Amino acid sequence: MTNRPRVVIVGGGFGGLAAAKALHAAPVDVVLIDRSNHHLFQPLLYQVATSVLAPGQIASPIRNILRKQRNAEVMLAEITGIDKEGRRVFAENVDRENVAIPYDYLVVATGAHHSYFGHDEFARFAPGLKTAADAVMIRNRILQAFERAEALDDPKRPDGLLTFVLVGAGPTGVEMAGAIAILVRQTLRTEFRRIDPTSARIVLVEGGGRVLASFSEPLSQAATERLKNLGVEVHSGRVDRIDADGAWIGQERIPSKTVIWAAGVAAAAPVGKWLQVETDRAGRVRVDGCCRVPGHPELFVVGDAASLDRAGQPLPGVAQVAMQQGRYAGDSIAKLATGGSQPSPFSYFDKGNMAVVGKGFAIVESGKFRLSGLPAWLAWAMIHISFLAQSGLRIAVFLQWMWTFLTGQRGDRLIVDDAGKHRAQT
Amino acid sequence: MTNRPRVVIVGGGFGGLAAAKALHAAPVDVVLIDRSNHHLFQPLLYQVATSVLAPGQIASPIRNILRKQRNAEVMLAEITGIDKEGRRVFAENVDRENVAIPYDYLVVATGAHHSYFGHDEFARFAPGLKTAADAVMIRNRILQAFERAEALDDPKRPDGLLTFVLVGAGPTGVEMAGAIAILVRQTLRTEFRRIDPTSARIVLVEGGGRVLASFSEPLSQAATERLKNLGVEVHSGRVDRIDADGAWIGQERIPSKTVIWAAGVAAAAPVGKWLQVETDRAGRVRVDGCCRVPGHPELFVVGDAASLDRAGQPLPGVAQVAMQQGRYAGDSIAKLATGGSQPSPFSYFDKGNMAVVGKGFAIVESGKFRLSGLPAWLAWAMIHISFLAQSGLRIAVFLQWMWTFLTGQRGDRLIVDDAGKHRAQT
Repeated sequence: MTNRPRVVIVGGGFGGLAAAKALHAAPVDVVLIDRSNHHLFQPLLYQVATSVLAPGQIASPIRNILRKQRNAEVMLAEITGIDKEGRRVFAENVDRENVAIPYDYLVVATGAHHSYFGHDEFARFAPGLKTAADAVMIRNRILQAFERAEALDDPKRPDGLLTFVLVGAGPTGVEMAGAIAILVRQTLRTEFRRIDPTSARIVLVEGGGRVLASFSEPLSQAATERLKNLGVEVHSGRVDRIDADGAWIGQERIPSKTVIWAAGVAAAAPVGKWLQVETDRAGRVRVDGCCRVPGHPELFVVGDAASLDRAGQPLPGVAQVAMQQGRYAGDSIAKLATGGSQPSPFSYFDKGNMAVVGKGFAIVESGKFRLSGLPAWLAWAMIHISFLAQSGLRIAVFLQWMWTFLTGQRGDRLIVDDAGKHRAQT
Repeated sequence: MTNRPRVVIVGGGFGGLAAAKALHAAPVDVVLIDRSNHHLFQPLLYQVATSVLAPGQIASPIRNILRKQRNAEVMLAEITGIDKEGRRVFAENVDRENVAIPYDYLVVATGAHHSYFGHDEFARFAPGLKTAADAVMIRNRILQAFERAEALDDPKRPDGLLTFVLVGAGPTGVEMAGAIAILVRQTLRTEFRRIDPTSARIVLVEGGGRVLASFSEPLSQAATERLKNLGVEVHSGRVDRIDADGAWIGQERIPSKTVIWAAGVAAAAPVGKWLQVETDRAGRVRVDGCCRVPGHPELFVVGDAASLDRAGQPLPGVAQVAMQQGRYAGDSIAKLATGGSQPSPFSYFDKGNMAVVGKGFAIVESGKFRLSGLPAWLAWAMIHISFLAQSGLRIAVFLQWMWTFLTGQRGDRLIVDDAGKHRAQT
């Protein structure tokens, strides 16, 4: 290493990568640390969970993304703590050795994980969807449910085996519900002999007043209509119990062997504890207007790990916030490292919001502009493809979508476990 | 179910699928049982282990392959025994319940697994390559080796971290060696900052006198030359010890953290014990000239689970033997079920043999016809693509190969473990 300032970036998601790229021409040494070797394109994770795409089609090796950025190196390690006074990050490396990595500037971009709002006992029965491993596990459960129903002596009594409950009607819950509906109607329809996959119940539980509450009322309504056309049942209320046999909404019991959690998120890493600073209820670090930890101008927290209000409302935990904050942090460090001063505070430019419902239908909202249906779906598809991190993936995902759209066939329908065998996990 | 004869087929590999398809027009009910939900195209498994293809690109859901064959149903279950007098198969189904499946005709096509010739203690250090899970595990180990070397304090002393030993110089060992050579030279070359991936040692250990001994001498020689050009070291001898630090050929120690076993196979399931019949040393059931268990005209064993001599030599354990025997068994049952008699004994038509060495180079031999180099590689590529079980996979694999050929980028370079994290496993 040189004597140039060292910038450590923790996390190779949207925020961390944007910070690293913003530093490509800066006279600094960048070390990007992630516990995983790949950047995961989380907005398409639901397509892995429903067999459309393979995990590798939404994951890019971080080394590959940064291979041409000569001032950046990538380290596969898991952060275990931060010494903000001594300016060191503690980590367990790939060989499980404890290492300390000194920094001059630090960008924490550790992202979010799903949260059960204090009901961690739900986790076993209702997995959430944040990593490639989560998606593969949920895919296993969905595909196994059909296998288990087919294996019953009396396939007329599946006892919730063919009921899929999505807890939470934000984009993840809605996109999963739509994708499962298409899976049973188009992909699995003709493949079983004892059960009828199209008899599956898909239940979407919304607890926020309406489906896709972050969109305007008319688009939310259009999405709800579309879900109903796909046969998805929308239930209102709070899920307050989940066990091996199903979910309860108040006194109403929904028998189900496959409950998927899409209701809430919290900071993925205990960043507040590491830094000994204040967090919001979801464990996100309260940062100043420049995405910094107060009193530490060298320490940035961005994306889902940070809590920053705009007009009294926290910025949403979406990719575009993380990317813009990451780039802002990188640009700030580039200035500071060359003797400049901290730029003016971060300001978020909201490009808009979109969600897919089933096949060939999406809703898009940007300011006062609203679109729904096939044109919105095409816009969604183009934008998502253009944001994939490698050109090879753009081609592969585009072709897979064309194929799935035309034939109903999906790309990756493996049931996998460690032994290469396929048993129910409950 | 009807009163038609029930044909149970155990195994959804090349043999079992060929048997099922041969019965498509027969007045029988077919039940194909596999412990996995997918047919795996094993000849390309080495490309999954070396990150070229994703597991899903060489795996087809068995239900999907047979969806239009109305007389066939698919059952996800693991066979635990066979009652050949009572004509029942015992299995553990997807819910881990024990079930008994009666049959009128049985086709056993359970395939082969790697064998350590009595040295099962090698398994932990030298995984073999037979299932999708094996391939992902080997891929993890190869990719992690580079991460671990990059994380060393003194990357000049990798102590075998960057040495890859392939035990066995048949097609699997040779294809793996060539693919790792291309991986380090084209894909990983620019992605590390402390280590030089091209400094990796790739050691192929042949114990059969020469590389690719099933081919004629000149082709074997051409492959050996090609391997040397790719920087692969070919060592002769028998590996008689493997541990966490490397492999021993007699007194020669090769320090290595990544040893891969490609030296031998044996029957995957204890079919001889289930049937209480004679097997060869590799556990394969000795069948009569009609692929039947002697004394049981309703019981066929095909493919790698069977031992059948031709001109005093056992038929090789390759896909084309399994496919031809499976089809023969299916055709025989179709005749028997309609009151006909057993056709004349099985005769194997050897279409030829091929193996890839690195990129754009293969050897092909069919009778007296021999070919090597790029034309052979093109023939290899066309034939392998045409044998994939789904048209979607043919397109996907073709495009992935074009992409990899032109850019050096690979399709699926995830390091994955259950927690979505990436630690060394040893």
